[in-house]
Amino acid sequence: MRIAFFGLGNMGAPMALNLLRAGHQMVIFNRTAEKAAPLIEAGATLARTPVDAVENCDVAITMLANDSAVRDTILANTSGQAAVIDRLPRGAVHMCTSTISVALSRELTEAHLRHGQNYVAATVLGRPEAAEQKKLWVMAAGPHDQIERCRPLMDAIGRGVSVMGEQPWQANLTKIASNFMLASVLETMGEAFALVRKSGMDPHAFLDVVNSLFASPVYANYGRIIADRQFKPAGFRLKLGLKDIGLAIEAGQEVSVPLPLASLVRDHYLTAIARGRENEDWAAVAEVAAENADLVNRVG
Amino acid sequence: MRIAFFGLGNMGAPMALNLLRAGHQMVIFNRTAEKAAPLIEAGATLARTPVDAVENCDVAITMLANDSAVRDTILANTSGQAAVIDRLPRGAVHMCTSTISVALSRELTEAHLRHGQNYVAATVLGRPEAAEQKKLWVMAAGPHDQIERCRPLMDAIGRGVSVMGEQPWQANLTKIASNFMLASVLETMGEAFALVRKSGMDPHAFLDVVNSLFASPVYANYGRIIADRQFKPAGFRLKLGLKDIGLAIEAGQEVSVPLPLASLVRDHYLTAIARGRENEDWAAVAEVAAENADLVNRVG
Amino acid sequence: MRIAFFGLGNMGAPMALNLLRAGHQMVIFNRTAEKAAPLIEAGATLARTPVDAVENCDVAITMLANDSAVRDTILANTSGQAAVIDRLPRGAVHMCTSTISVALSRELTEAHLRHGQNYVAATVLGRPEAAEQKKLWVMAAGPHDQIERCRPLMDAIGRGVSVMGEQPWQANLTKIASNFMLASVLETMGEAFALVRKSGMDPHAFLDVVNSLFASPVYANYGRIIADRQFKPAGFRLKLGLKDIGLAIEAGQEVSVPLPLASLVRDHYLTAIARGRENEDWAAVAEVAAENADLVNRVG
Amino acid sequence: MRIAFFGLGNMGAPMALNLLRAGHQMVIFNRTAEKAAPLIEAGATLARTPVDAVENCDVAITMLANDSAVRDTILANTSGQAAVIDRLPRGAVHMCTSTISVALSRELTEAHLRHGQNYVAATVLGRPEAAEQKKLWVMAAGPHDQIERCRPLMDAIGRGVSVMGEQPWQANLTKIASNFMLASVLETMGEAFALVRKSGMDPHAFLDVVNSLFASPVYANYGRIIADRQFKPAGFRLKLGLKDIGLAIEAGQEVSVPLPLASLVRDHYLTAIARGRENEDWAAVAEVAAENADLVNRVG
Repeated sequence: MRIAFFGLGNMGAPMALNLLRAGHQMVIFNRTAEKAAPLIEAGATLARTPVDAVENCDVAITMLANDSAVRDTILANTSGQAAVIDRLPRGAVHMCTSTISVALSRELTEAHLRHGQNYVAATVLGRPEAAEQKKLWVMAAGPHDQIERCRPLMDAIGRGVSVMGEQPWQANLTKIASNFMLASVLETMGEAFALVRKSGMDPHAFLDVVNSLFASPVYANYGRIIADRQFKPAGFRLKLGLKDIGLAIEAGQEVSVPLPLASLVRDHYLTAIARGRENEDWAAVAEVAAENADLVNRVG
Repeated sequence: MRIAFFGLGNMGAPMALNLLRAGHQMVIFNRTAEKAAPLIEAGATLARTPVDAVENCDVAITMLANDSAVRDTILANTSGQAAVIDRLPRGAVHMCTSTISVALSRELTEAHLRHGQNYVAATVLGRPEAAEQKKLWVMAAGPHDQIERCRPLMDAIGRGVSVMGEQPWQANLTKIASNFMLASVLETMGEAFALVRKSGMDPHAFLDVVNSLFASPVYANYGRIIADRQFKPAGFRLKLGLKDIGLAIEAGQEVSVPLPLASLVRDHYLTAIARGRENEDWAAVAEVAAENADLVNRVG
Repeated sequence: MRIAFFGLGNMGAPMALNLLRAGHQMVIFNRTAEKAAPLIEAGATLARTPVDAVENCDVAITMLANDSAVRDTILANTSGQAAVIDRLPRGAVHMCTSTISVALSRELTEAHLRHGQNYVAATVLGRPEAAEQKKLWVMAAGPHDQIERCRPLMDAIGRGVSVMGEQPWQANLTKIASNFMLASVLETMGEAFALVRKSGMDPHAFLDVVNSLFASPVYANYGRIIADRQFKPAGFRLKLGLKDIGLAIEAGQEVSVPLPLASLVRDHYLTAIARGRENEDWAAVAEVAAENADLVNRVG
Repeated sequence: MRIAFFGLGNMGAPMALNLLRAGHQMVIFNRTAEKAAPLIEAGATLARTPVDAVENCDVAITMLANDSAVRDTILANTSGQAAVIDRLPRGAVHMCTSTISVALSRELTEAHLRHGQNYVAATVLGRPEAAEQKKLWVMAAGPHDQIERCRPLMDAIGRGVSVMGEQPWQANLTKIASNFMLASVLETMGEAFALVRKSGMDPHAFLDVVNSLFASPVYANYGRIIADRQFKPAGFRLKLGLKDIGLAIEAGQEVSVPLPLASLVRDHYLTAIARGRENEDWAAVAEVAAENADLVNRVG
C-alpha cells in the first residue's frame, strides 16, 4: 500500500521501518529532517509538507506525541492553508496509532466521515525495543472492513492484534486503561521497594520473589529498572506518562468514573516533574516513593 | 521428621497433607476436630492439647490466621498453664508459615532463642489450589543451618524457595510486601474495569488485552474473577486482605515509609466490609470501584 | 458609571441589583429574558445582543458560570460576527467576577491589552444570601489605576476588598485556592460526621463542639447543612464545585504542584455526580463519605 | 476536692496549676521531679509513687501522652506490685483528660466499674497557651452524676464544657474527630499555600483572604505559622499528631468507616517524621506539601 507516515520518534521510526521492510511504499514527513535519513535510505520518499505527503496515498499513519500534535497535523487549517484532512484522498484511511484522548478520537471519526474518508484507531502496547523487534501488541477499532484493510499493516508492526469494536475510540480507551495499569505497577513497585529497602533488605532479592509471584515480563522489566534505580535513558518519558494518566482521568470524568489510583499516580508524577525528572523513564516515579521515605541519600 | 502442625484451614490442610505424603510423621491439633479427619486418615495423630502436640517433635509448623492466633498458640501462658513454647523441646525448630507482623516475628525470634529453640519464618505465596498442587512459593528466612534443616519440608509443600536472609522477619516483610502488590493489582483492575464497563465496552475483550500485556497468571486469574464478578467462594477472604494491608501499613510506620497506595486500598476494603463483603474473595474490592462509578445495577 | 452586566444567575442578579441601587447605569444581556425582569424594573436597560450591551459603556462586568461561557461571550467571533471584545470601547474596563481559570485570565489580559482596553479580575467569596446582603468579599487584581477606578463597584457589591496584585490572574488563583479550602472543609466534615454517626453519636452534639473549636461561620453554615443532611436547594451546585476543584488541579499542574487533597475531593465529587447529585449543594459530597461507610439507610 | 494529678507536660502543668488556684488539694506524681517544682510551690504535695498519690483522693486526673502511658499508670500491675486502679478508693472517680483510643476508654470504663470506682472522660481542646489562660474547651462524657461531681474541676481548667453522653468513649471519639478536623486544616493549608507560593504570590496576602473567609482563630493561628514557616517551638508536636490521626483511623476501622483524608494526612506525617520533623509543630506537615512541589529551597 501507499503509506503516508507522520511521527518518526523512538516508536514511529522503527514502526515505519518495519512497514517498509514488509514491502509497502512510503512517503514521510517530519519536522526534523535528520530523523528521516534512515528511512529514506530504506526506500521512503520525503515530502516537503504534510499535505504533500498524503497526495495519492491509501493510508495515512500517525504516531505523534499527543492530542495537540495530531490535531495540528491532521485537522489544523491555519492561515487559510489546506490541512491534511483536506487533501487525504476520498476513500483513503487514517490509521491513528498515537495515544490520544477518547474525545479527539471521536472528533476525528466525525471529521473523516464528513470528508468521505475512513478512520481507524490502532493503538500499540510496547516500548521502543518491542517496536524494533516487531513485537508490539495492536489494539484496533473501527469499521470492520477498514480494520481488515489495515490488518496487513498491523501485522507488519506487531505480534498480534486485538479488535476492540467498531468505534475507533474503543481502541484509544483500551490503550489509556492499559497505560493506567502499567503506571499503577510502577507506583506499587515504588512503594514496595521503598519499604523493603528502608527496612534494610536487598531490593534484588525481593525482585526475585516478585518475579516468582507475577512471572510477567512487565514486572521483570520495570522491576529491574527500579531495583537498579536506572532511569536513563528513558524507554517512555515521564512527562508522557503524566499525559497518559491525564487521559485516563479525563476519560473517567467524561463518564463519571473516579479513578483514585490514577489521581494518586498523577500527583506523584507532578512531584517527579517538579524535581526535574520529566525526561527520565516513567518508572522514576518510584523515586518519589523513596524520597517520601527519605531514602534519597541512602544506598541499597 | 516428627512434625507438630497447627492450623488446618484451607491453606494449612493441603500443606499438612503434602508433608504426610512426603513421609513425615505428624501430630496435629485443631480447635475444630472435623477438619482433622482427612489428615488422621492420611496417617496423622491427633493431640488433645497444643502442648501435647509438640512433645518429642523436631519441628512445629504454624499456619494460623493472624498475629493473635499465633501468639495465643505459641506464647500464651494463661491461667498458670504451660504454653507451646514451654514444651517445645530444646533444639527443635518452629517453622512459622503464617502471615504475621514483622514485630511479632521479631518477638518470636527472641522468645525461642531464650528457650534454646530455633525459629524460622517460611511464608508462602499461592492460593488454596496451589497449596493442594504443591505449587506454593516459599520465602524463607532464619539461621542458615535451620533453613537447610527445614528445606525438605519446604520442598514438600512448594515449587521453589527464596531465602531472604538470616533474620526471620525478612521472610515476613517479603510476604507482606508481596500481598500489598497483589492487593494493588486488584485495586488497579477494579478501577480499570469500571472505566471500561461504564464507557460501554466488553470487560472480557479488555481482559484479553490485559493478558497480552502482562502475560501473568496473577492477572489472568484475578482478571477473570473481576470480569466475571464472581467473588464466591473466596480463595482468600477480603477480611484477611484487610489484615494484610494493615500489616504493610504497620511495617511502613515502623520505619517511617508512607504507602499511600496501601492506604487507598485499605480504605476501599473498609467500604467493602461495611457493605458485607468480608467473606467474599478479596478481589471483590473491585466492586467498590464499580459502586463509586454507580455501576452497581448495570449489566456488562 | 455606565455598566454592561453579563450573567444574571443566583450570584449575578443580586450583584447587579446592588450596583443599580448604588446609582449606576446598567445595560444587561441575558440568554433567558425572564431573569432580566426584576433588573429592568430596578432601572436597567435590556440589550438585544451582547455586543449591543457594551456600546458606550465604561465597564463590562461578567458573572458567568465558567471558562466556556466567558470565552463565548467576550472572545468568540463566530460566523464572522463581532465579539464583545471587538465593540467594548477603547479605554473601557472589563471587570471579570467569574471563577475562571488562571490560563483564561492571562488570555483575557493580553486580548484586552491588544484592543486598547483594560482588564481587572474581581472574584468574590460568598453564597447567594451574601450577594443579596452586599456581604461578598472581593479579591481584586489588575493595574493599580484600574482597581481604583472599579473600587466603587466593588464597594457596591461587598463588605471588603483584598487587592492581590497587579496581575489579574492573581485574583483568580486566590479564588480558586479559597474554593479548594472550602471543598476540603466539606470533605473533612463528611468523614468526621460519618465516623461520629456510625459510632452511634448525635451529629448535632458533635457540631456544637465543632463550632466551639472553629468559631467560624463557614463551619457553622456547612456543619448545619451536613448534620441536617439538607442539600437542597443548592447554594452552590455540586457540579460547579467539581469545576472549581478542576481549576485548582489545573492551576497546580501548570506550576507542578500536586494537590492530593484536591484529587481526593474531585474523585468524591465524581461519585456524587455518578449518583445523580450534580444539582444538590456541593456539601452533598459528605453523603459520599457516609455511603462509603454504608450509612445510607441509617438514621441519625 | 482532693485531687491526684498525673502528667505534668505542657498541657498538664498549667491545668494542674489552675486547679490549685481554684482551691483544690493536690497530690502529684511525675517521673521527672523538676517539672513538679512550680506546682509544689503552688501548694501541691509530691508523692513517691503513683500508688501513693491516690491514697485518700476523691479524683484522679490523668493528662498523659498516649494509651501506653495511661495503661502503664492506671492498669499495669507489674512484678506483683499494686497498680493505681488497685489503690484508688472505692467511690472515687478517674477523670481522664488524655487523648486516648476509644478502645482503651471502654476498657477503663469496665475496669473501674469492677473496682467499684467511677470513670469520666473529659478531653480538652486547646493548645498550651489556652491551658494557661484557662481557655480550654472540655468535652465530657460519663454517668450524669459523675459529670456533675467533676464539673467544678472542668470549670477550673476551661471556658466551657460540652457533655457528649453517658458513655466515656463518646468524649474520646469527639476529641479524636476534632483533632482529625484540625489536621485536615493543616493539610489543606499546606497544599493551598504551596500552590500560591509556587505561583509567585505572597502567602501573607493570601492569608488575609483566608482570614476574611473563615474568620476563625484556628485558621488565623495555624495560617500564620504556615505562612511564616515557623514550626518551632511546637505547640503540639508532630509525632503526637501522627498518634492522633492513628486513633482516628483505628476508631474508623472499628466501625468500618474509611477516612481517606485521615489516611492522606497520616502518610504525610510519616514523611515529615522520616525527614526529622517529629518534634516540630504538627503544622509542619505543610512543609511536605511544599517539598512535593519542590519548594524547599525557594523563598517567599
